Amino acid sequence: MTVRVAVAGASGYAGGEVLRLLLGHPEVEVGALTAGASAGMTLGQYQPHLLPLAGRVLADTTTEELAGHDVVFLALPHGKSARIAAELGPDTVVIDCGADHRLEDAAAWQRWYGGEHAGSWPYGLPELAGRDALKAAKRVAVPGCYPTVSSLALAPAVADGLVEPEVVIVAVSGTSGAGKSLKPHLLGSEVMGSLSAYGVAGTHRHTPEITQNLSKAAGEHVSVSFTPVLAPLPRGILATCSANLKPGRTIEDVRAAYEKSYADEPFVHVLPTGSWPTTGAVLGSNAVQLQLAVDTELNRLTVVGAIDNLTKGTAGAAVQCMNIALGLPETTGLSTVGVAP
Amino acid sequence: MTVRVAVAGASGYAGGEVLRLLLGHPEVEVGALTAGASAGMTLGQYQPHLLPLAGRVLADTTTEELAGHDVVFLALPHGKSARIAAELGPDTVVIDCGADHRLEDAAAWQRWYGGEHAGSWPYGLPELAGRDALKAAKRVAVPGCYPTVSSLALAPAVADGLVEPEVVIVAVSGTSGAGKSLKPHLLGSEVMGSLSAYGVAGTHRHTPEITQNLSKAAGEHVSVSFTPVLAPLPRGILATCSANLKPGRTIEDVRAAYEKSYADEPFVHVLPTGSWPTTGAVLGSNAVQLQLAVDTELNRLTVVGAIDNLTKGTAGAAVQCMNIALGLPETTGLSTVGVAP
Amino acid sequence: MTVRVAVAGASGYAGGEVLRLLLGHPEVEVGALTAGASAGMTLGQYQPHLLPLAGRVLADTTTEELAGHDVVFLALPHGKSARIAAELGPDTVVIDCGADHRLEDAAAWQRWYGGEHAGSWPYGLPELAGRDALKAAKRVAVPGCYPTVSSLALAPAVADGLVEPEVVIVAVSGTSGAGKSLKPHLLGSEVMGSLSAYGVAGTHRHTPEITQNLSKAAGEHVSVSFTPVLAPLPRGILATCSANLKPGRTIEDVRAAYEKSYADEPFVHVLPTGSWPTTGAVLGSNAVQLQLAVDTELNRLTVVGAIDNLTKGTAGAAVQCMNIALGLPETTGLSTVGVAP
Amino acid sequence: MTVRVAVAGASGYAGGEVLRLLLGHPEVEVGALTAGASAGMTLGQYQPHLLPLAGRVLADTTTEELAGHDVVFLALPHGKSARIAAELGPDTVVIDCGADHRLEDAAAWQRWYGGEHAGSWPYGLPELAGRDALKAAKRVAVPGCYPTVSSLALAPAVADGLVEPEVVIVAVSGTSGAGKSLKPHLLGSEVMGSLSAYGVAGTHRHTPEITQNLSKAAGEHVSVSFTPVLAPLPRGILATCSANLKPGRTIEDVRAAYEKSYADEPFVHVLPTGSWPTTGAVLGSNAVQLQLAVDTELNRLTVVGAIDNLTKGTAGAAVQCMNIALGLPETTGLSTVGVAP
Repeated sequence: MTVRVAVAGASGYAGGEVLRLLLGHPEVEVGALTAGASAGMTLGQYQPHLLPLAGRVLADTTTEELAGHDVVFLALPHGKSARIAAELGPDTVVIDCGADHRLEDAAAWQRWYGGEHAGSWPYGLPELAGRDALKAAKRVAVPGCYPTVSSLALAPAVADGLVEPEVVIVAVSGTSGAGKSLKPHLLGSEVMGSLSAYGVAGTHRHTPEITQNLSKAAGEHVSVSFTPVLAPLPRGILATCSANLKPGRTIEDVRAAYEKSYADEPFVHVLPTGSWPTTGAVLGSNAVQLQLAVDTELNRLTVVGAIDNLTKGTAGAAVQCMNIALGLPETTGLSTVGVAP
Repeated sequence: MTVRVAVAGASGYAGGEVLRLLLGHPEVEVGALTAGASAGMTLGQYQPHLLPLAGRVLADTTTEELAGHDVVFLALPHGKSARIAAELGPDTVVIDCGADHRLEDAAAWQRWYGGEHAGSWPYGLPELAGRDALKAAKRVAVPGCYPTVSSLALAPAVADGLVEPEVVIVAVSGTSGAGKSLKPHLLGSEVMGSLSAYGVAGTHRHTPEITQNLSKAAGEHVSVSFTPVLAPLPRGILATCSANLKPGRTIEDVRAAYEKSYADEPFVHVLPTGSWPTTGAVLGSNAVQLQLAVDTELNRLTVVGAIDNLTKGTAGAAVQCMNIALGLPETTGLSTVGVAP
Repeated sequence: MTVRVAVAGASGYAGGEVLRLLLGHPEVEVGALTAGASAGMTLGQYQPHLLPLAGRVLADTTTEELAGHDVVFLALPHGKSARIAAELGPDTVVIDCGADHRLEDAAAWQRWYGGEHAGSWPYGLPELAGRDALKAAKRVAVPGCYPTVSSLALAPAVADGLVEPEVVIVAVSGTSGAGKSLKPHLLGSEVMGSLSAYGVAGTHRHTPEITQNLSKAAGEHVSVSFTPVLAPLPRGILATCSANLKPGRTIEDVRAAYEKSYADEPFVHVLPTGSWPTTGAVLGSNAVQLQLAVDTELNRLTVVGAIDNLTKGTAGAAVQCMNIALGLPETTGLSTVGVAP
Repeated sequence: MTVRVAVAGASGYAGGEVLRLLLGHPEVEVGALTAGASAGMTLGQYQPHLLPLAGRVLADTTTEELAGHDVVFLALPHGKSARIAAELGPDTVVIDCGADHRLEDAAAWQRWYGGEHAGSWPYGLPELAGRDALKAAKRVAVPGCYPTVSSLALAPAVADGLVEPEVVIVAVSGTSGAGKSLKPHLLGSEVMGSLSAYGVAGTHRHTPEITQNLSKAAGEHVSVSFTPVLAPLPRGILATCSANLKPGRTIEDVRAAYEKSYADEPFVHVLPTGSWPTTGAVLGSNAVQLQLAVDTELNRLTVVGAIDNLTKGTAGAAVQCMNIALGLPETTGLSTVGVAP
């Protein structure tokens, strides 16, 4: 089987990571690479690490360029994918790394992103949303990076009613999550040696997505306090997630629930007791590392999760969903081996 | 006035930072410098940034070496300061950068640190504990770095009864807080490009100190969920602290309380709305930067605080307390100007 | 004595560092702060580490704003200082942190910078150029950062004829030397975890300045092979400089020459044998650390020098020259103590 | 074909990288994993990024454990490989990532490493040493990391007599090259934000290896001035290498020589004019990126090369040589795609 794939937004970080993974995918042939302002340049000028494709010239992101592929990955600013998908027709598998189709609530989408909601697509977090809707899907909405790790870190606890439905998440992230946008606070001189919080007090756009995921898992509304922190590293998210245990619940209950939930998941690893996740260990890998503990004085559960925001947090999930949608083994072209140190 | 000062533990990070500040203090003459295993070496081999003292030879940490100074700073592992202080006599000002005399509850001390509690000393966080006990004090317990920023970030809210007495703190720290101990996870190769949580679920020794501080401020027991995270930078702590607002309380109430609490504090800065603290902005300075916001959907307050863990978090507080104890202007030799970028 | 000082270009890294030092200078009162595109904003939005000046509003960089001060620091793009200096009149001390007046050869200036040469000003590297021209100077050209450390690292060797006049310099720098310009390769995500060379093979504008300095010192033309390398840290330059020893010359000759040259220099430190410079040790300080060794198989001298590019490499030198020009003690407001770790 | 492989020294950085690559190698089955002081622990405690092998228990590094494999990789301190290889017998392919068998000159080996020279093995840099000796080899000496990039950066120029046989190399390296040894200067707090030179003036053990390589390529003695610099990143070496062009030689001659030398090499990439190597682009990949320029004023060639010190600089070369020795396609399990940003 040879799957012909196009990538829109190939000059950015998400598009680059999709291509990095596709270059190691045994069933894929890389077709059109498109971009916005970078069209006409070679890929090598933007992605010097993708040597086998360095000489490829970036085309404009148009439906004409993207048509004729089996799968099209969209790594575009939000608001652009619905029209492209419509024009590509229903037979092309379209995998959207952007935010357009993640939220099911149109009102929420409009409040957080502005403009009209383009509808929701099957949600590309198979460990949480299941695989049924993804099998043979022609449209997939890849989750946001923070929602991926935060939801996987808390879902078993809320789903089994082990904790009160009021969670606090502080997630520390590397800078690539902010993309290549030329903003002063993302300059190396500003980032290195410094830590900063942003999107505090429920103002980050990933908040409603986490709330949606956990509320679905819980079967009731879960209130989510979410704060992202920017730290001096290119890749990785470490999420510290906590909630009060319900009366009578113990660490053993929690551990059992997590081990059961993720027993058959190839990418989610509940670490042995005593080991704690690090983002370094999952760099470049599609793995999620989790560990949990209970503060026995407070009866409060803390779950720590680590992912690579560009891999499992974006492009790895996208490839994982492509595999499911095409009926390929889910782990094809994906690894649980990180690049460390 | 010339104050003659000795520093015990001069080869470590805390001792080095005390010396860096003392070298810029106009009333201080640096006397004995002592160390443990490094005794006999020059200071320059351990603190190459302290050029004016580079040729000084480190003496053994003995009472004989430390005697005869007006002020002795102790930057030693816990468990050592009580005996030294006793032997130095009641007239020497002894400022302990370690943990021996921070906790008032002997049982708590024994549980968290082991061994017998040596008693508590006046607590060197004047913005919280006041200055009365520090004026003319001969003994000062310098707070821990996490408790400093966490307590200052939350005290006005709990003191004024604006939030429920159940707080969640996730504090991201640079590596110098762990000192110079030769542990594999502190190697540069491990730290750079990675994030990790440790002391999760109430197992970090600074937890009871934060609880003590906030409970005192609140006049009732405050339950503290505290998680420290290690990030790839040498200095700085960014604490993200949250708690549910009590019914009817608003962001305006909170801001007013913070501005009132810190109006006359030279080192605590509540930033203008829209600006958020960064550790880069306080590098090498004794400043604390705070900002706050309320998630109006959750009615939850989040306060973000930034300090330099070695300056305001350790050595700056120590010098600040020395100034108060000696009747010098509190800001002598201390700065609110950071070294950035 | 109170010196009233204005800073043009206060929103950039060089201007910010000038202000950081001036805030610690006992004889200075900070007057006008001006900027280009940032005019109208508060300084705190650009320099959050300069808390005492955070509320100051940036004015436009015009002669009217800058007039009426004893000293005006210019931290502007090249090509702008001559006109401003002319308009300020001959009595104002104008200290140019930019490149306009560093090169004496008009043809060289035009070749490297374009446009017409505005003439050379007294060169602000007193350790090399001497103090005579700087005393009572009304105009000072602050050296470039690479030329500062490279010239100090090699001058004694070429001046005493100890090495052949053909030197190779590879200087590794932090990112702040590139300023706040919003270029993709300066983003944190690109910088962290990566090393790159630029301006290779004599194409960096600091090459003619190093050549000018060393040729003056040698009394003959010195050929300079210079390569800058960008590394993941905000501040600091480490220059590795080498040249073949002339026949019969030994490490002892070289060490004697360096110790003699810099014996009375407050900011240049030839380290004890066995200690090697690190940029961490001079962070935020005006010190230059040097160490030297001879490869006895090749008879080649290597000198390693470290500075903070923003302090001794720019703003510290500027303040040092202001002190000399005003007849103040040269070290006023400057330190040889770094902020480490 | 299934190749059964053992790794001695599996808890260190070199051993970990060998395993990372072997986990992606389609023909390999990982057998015994041995260690020194870490024997008895699980691999996951030392290499948390190697999830598929995390539960494996490390055995003692003994011949018994290593026997019975097709290939044994040795990632051990120098001085240990000869005995192990002798005991394993002549039929096992032994690939030594250490220094024992790199130098051909016994006297040089003794001077630089001490102890008796164990003889030289076929040198595992096929791009330079050719493949003849490696095909069907049972013993391979993997080159040092600095010699790999330095030799590849300069060999075509010296081999074709384009430059004078006197070269200057300054190579900036990440910290993983120093291994996991617990030394104070390798602590994260010391490394981050700082640059330092070490092994200056021909005192680094890789100097004779570079000299050997380049002299062989040139057919005459090449004098090598080599200085390594430590920079704040975990992986990567950027080597800046220069030499004077011989009279009449031009950049075109040089470029032609490099393109010819490396035309058929799968891992060595001479970048298009205008692009410069970065270590970020080769992170985790086996690629070598090269670019060259001539300073026309000095007639001096500068070649800049980038590798990942752990991949092409150690473990990637080891796997590449295994492939050649076993008659597998040389690129099996190896990639030229880096993990960036």
